[in-house]
Amino acid sequence: MSALPAAKTSPGNFFEDFQLGQTIRHATPRTVTLGDVALYNGLFGARFAVQSSDVFAQKIGYPRSPLDDFLVFHIVFGKTVADISLNAVANLGYADCRFLKPVFPGATLTAVSDVIGLRENSNKKTGIVYVRSRGFDETGDTVLDFARWVMVHKRDEAAAAPVEKVPDLPKNVEPAQLGVACPNISTAAYDTTLAGSPYRFGDYKTGDKIDHIDGITVEEAEHQIATRLYQNTARIHFNQFAESKGRFGRRLIYGGHAISLARALSFNGLANAFHVAAINGGGTLPPCLLATRSSRGQRCWPPLVCRVGKMSVRCVCAPLRPRTGHVPTFRSKPATSTIRRSSSIWTTGC
Amino acid sequence: MSALPAAKTSPGNFFEDFQLGQTIRHATPRTVTLGDVALYNGLFGARFAVQSSDVFAQKIGYPRSPLDDFLVFHIVFGKTVADISLNAVANLGYADCRFLKPVFPGATLTAVSDVIGLRENSNKKTGIVYVRSRGFDETGDTVLDFARWVMVHKRDEAAAAPVEKVPDLPKNVEPAQLGVACPNISTAAYDTTLAGSPYRFGDYKTGDKIDHIDGITVEEAEHQIATRLYQNTARIHFNQFAESKGRFGRRLIYGGHAISLARALSFNGLANAFHVAAINGGGTLPPCLLATRSSRGQRCWPPLVCRVGKMSVRCVCAPLRPRTGHVPTFRSKPATSTIRRSSSIWTTGC
Amino acid sequence: MSALPAAKTSPGNFFEDFQLGQTIRHATPRTVTLGDVALYNGLFGARFAVQSSDVFAQKIGYPRSPLDDFLVFHIVFGKTVADISLNAVANLGYADCRFLKPVFPGATLTAVSDVIGLRENSNKKTGIVYVRSRGFDETGDTVLDFARWVMVHKRDEAAAAPVEKVPDLPKNVEPAQLGVACPNISTAAYDTTLAGSPYRFGDYKTGDKIDHIDGITVEEAEHQIATRLYQNTARIHFNQFAESKGRFGRRLIYGGHAISLARALSFNGLANAFHVAAINGGGTLPPCLLATRSSRGQRCWPPLVCRVGKMSVRCVCAPLRPRTGHVPTFRSKPATSTIRRSSSIWTTGC
Repeated sequence: MSALPAAKTSPGNFFEDFQLGQTIRHATPRTVTLGDVALYNGLFGARFAVQSSDVFAQKIGYPRSPLDDFLVFHIVFGKTVADISLNAVANLGYADCRFLKPVFPGATLTAVSDVIGLRENSNKKTGIVYVRSRGFDETGDTVLDFARWVMVHKRDEAAAAPVEKVPDLPKNVEPAQLGVACPNISTAAYDTTLAGSPYRFGDYKTGDKIDHIDGITVEEAEHQIATRLYQNTARIHFNQFAESKGRFGRRLIYGGHAISLARALSFNGLANAFHVAAINGGGTLPPCLLATRSSRGQRCWPPLVCRVGKMSVRCVCAPLRPRTGHVPTFRSKPATSTIRRSSSIWTTGC
Repeated sequence: MSALPAAKTSPGNFFEDFQLGQTIRHATPRTVTLGDVALYNGLFGARFAVQSSDVFAQKIGYPRSPLDDFLVFHIVFGKTVADISLNAVANLGYADCRFLKPVFPGATLTAVSDVIGLRENSNKKTGIVYVRSRGFDETGDTVLDFARWVMVHKRDEAAAAPVEKVPDLPKNVEPAQLGVACPNISTAAYDTTLAGSPYRFGDYKTGDKIDHIDGITVEEAEHQIATRLYQNTARIHFNQFAESKGRFGRRLIYGGHAISLARALSFNGLANAFHVAAINGGGTLPPCLLATRSSRGQRCWPPLVCRVGKMSVRCVCAPLRPRTGHVPTFRSKPATSTIRRSSSIWTTGC
Repeated sequence: MSALPAAKTSPGNFFEDFQLGQTIRHATPRTVTLGDVALYNGLFGARFAVQSSDVFAQKIGYPRSPLDDFLVFHIVFGKTVADISLNAVANLGYADCRFLKPVFPGATLTAVSDVIGLRENSNKKTGIVYVRSRGFDETGDTVLDFARWVMVHKRDEAAAAPVEKVPDLPKNVEPAQLGVACPNISTAAYDTTLAGSPYRFGDYKTGDKIDHIDGITVEEAEHQIATRLYQNTARIHFNQFAESKGRFGRRLIYGGHAISLARALSFNGLANAFHVAAINGGGTLPPCLLATRSSRGQRCWPPLVCRVGKMSVRCVCAPLRPRTGHVPTFRSKPATSTIRRSSSIWTTGC
């Protein structure tokens, strides 16, 4: 093939393309619909009553069922990929992720990122880009705000290193920083039988461990459909031909896929924790693959802390050791949810 | 893993947890949307004009296209799983299943089951639970009513047996028991060309056999997406890691998946039988698996009789013998539809 | 199995069933919804802003986001399959395909085909059927018009050959033949940052080659779900049991699946080419299979020319050579998009 990649095609940004303080408006705006919700449900099977039933949502004070918080996260995140992480070596972490306003079907989401930190690695081949990304609805209100940092390839090892700046990111989201993504709930109107569990906020204690019991095996078609639904174009999730020669020999599952599965599986034990108010943060994200012989049940996502309903819940989802040549099964065990001592998040205590 | 399953997680009910006369209100209410319809169409490919086109439906007397009857069935059924059959050994049968009111996108469905029978098995390890389950829309009207019986594990073999009661369930649905799930149809406005077949009700005779010809191979991703769409959480459909050590070595396909495929395939030969008014009943449901070497084209669902149009049609869907290590293909042959002598169901005769 | 296929089941038309001048109204009318759009997005991951965001679409002059043009194509095409190509040996070509009116969620589509040519092959076993197919919305307006020709089996080799007529089909769509599927666009309101590329119509030159870089691996579940979504019943796409004994040993991927993937992948390089106004035509369509050992990266669809934005763009999508026993990956390379000298298509030049 003689044609070189033409300039009109974007190969994505490399480390030296980022500038501290730079603001990036991301393509493609997206009207989120009932269709997206249905496909998300088919892919993850969440059962939280507030997101499932308009009638239930209206009874407690929502105008209708809001979108699953992680569907909002994935769509906003997906928009950032083409500009931020197309040439990523690895997604290193998240922090200070706050869901600030409920999103309903029909909303149109856009995303903007600010470059808040840069640090070249000592090997001169890569650097770490810190961004704060925000999602907006069509009224201009912020619906989601989070920081993340990514290791990105340099295009040219000889390119000069930028002024180093590592931002000071909070380890935990402070209650005062939470938004109003959950309206004033009529707790009296909240029907725990319909919601699927008698356990209200007051029944949980710091230190409780909850084994969510269930597991789900992920198929290639499933994670590809999900990731495309978010218009997330990271190549590593889609191109088996290229990945067969890559680091893992397999397509990598978008880390958010495991997060959504864990969230859906957490229903059994946390059925009344219907809204994710914030994510305190997460460290490195070891890769999720549909298993090869050599993969060994490594944790697929780190102690990503979801604070839910005035609780801080630490959910961990881990792939079980797969059979040779077979697909892995995600399960929330040994990754139990743990009610943590440090929790103090504002949201309705249903 | 030292943590025991915490009380806040429901392991599902065991045989001794059920009581005769008990009423169980199921979680999770569900607003069914156009998105659910689209995904259902993508999974099964039904072509009945009434469910496919609002314009067609309106011409004959519906306010708009109703949901596919089996989508309603699966959603209502799915709600019952967490309470009734999470610890099932096997789904033994259905009877007296009646679709009583059309359901349109936007409706919110809930489900309630009454325990109508209990019988401990002689091995003391399991028992049979008979329930009558009903689905309701947001107005409180019943949209679906059916009985089923399930063999359920006991938690404790020493638990006392309940008073035995085996309910008397009808072998056939009587015409007078049918609902008004089909409005008064303008048969003159029914366009058989658009509907896909010139054969009207009067063209079918008792004893006719119809080979629906086509077949569809089921992929793991497909049945998992479908089953999650119904919020059906039966573990056996999702966790390959656990099932690899289980009875079949594979995930089991939700029996309703084959039913929906058979319904969609029955279009070729029954294109004008647009509404399933009732299901007379079905016996045991041999398991559907994505095939292993040892599986041998066993029938995947029993003589489940769907009475359609003033006809009673016996549809049988069978997996064909698969190639070693490959997925099975469901086909409606040898499982032909048979117009049965006993039929006499009220519904429009298009 | 002793039952013969009953007359009520349609085996599809054979070559001798077609008559020159015959008009065929196809089943099944279809109301296209936001749910269909969401599933299409999940399957292909298109990122064109006009189709993705109601707000973006409204700013430039659409009442809301129109459907992806190829979703319209596939739905209309799907309706023709049961009557035209159920007994096809091969789909031979398309010509003069024009998108004449934008289609929005809620529209109800129907399809009609005219037999415009017939030619028996010299082997007397097959013949070529030429049809002009049109898609209509619920107002009766034509939304899509295209010609195609298909090689179809004869039922009876002894059947008399029809009068031979090979229609004269244009090699290119003339500008004057284009419809108004794109409204008058406010180019000033078109935000290239949100759209994902700074390159406007004037930046492209005849002869430009664009390597769209990315690739997507197709899973069986994905193409089956897509093809069922279009209610396309061609058996070769669904029945592994039958196809294992057929020409290819595998299910064949609907050719339109690769077209939609190519269209989605073409975003990177043609992000502002938001509307497909016409398809000049395409020659033979070599089969797309999920690869077997012997398949060798053959082109999966031919130089199918999509004229976009006053440009004529030649997009070619080719499966890469797959690993033994593994699924193929479609990529737009070596199949670059080429801006062609002959282009002169009316549509907005964003």
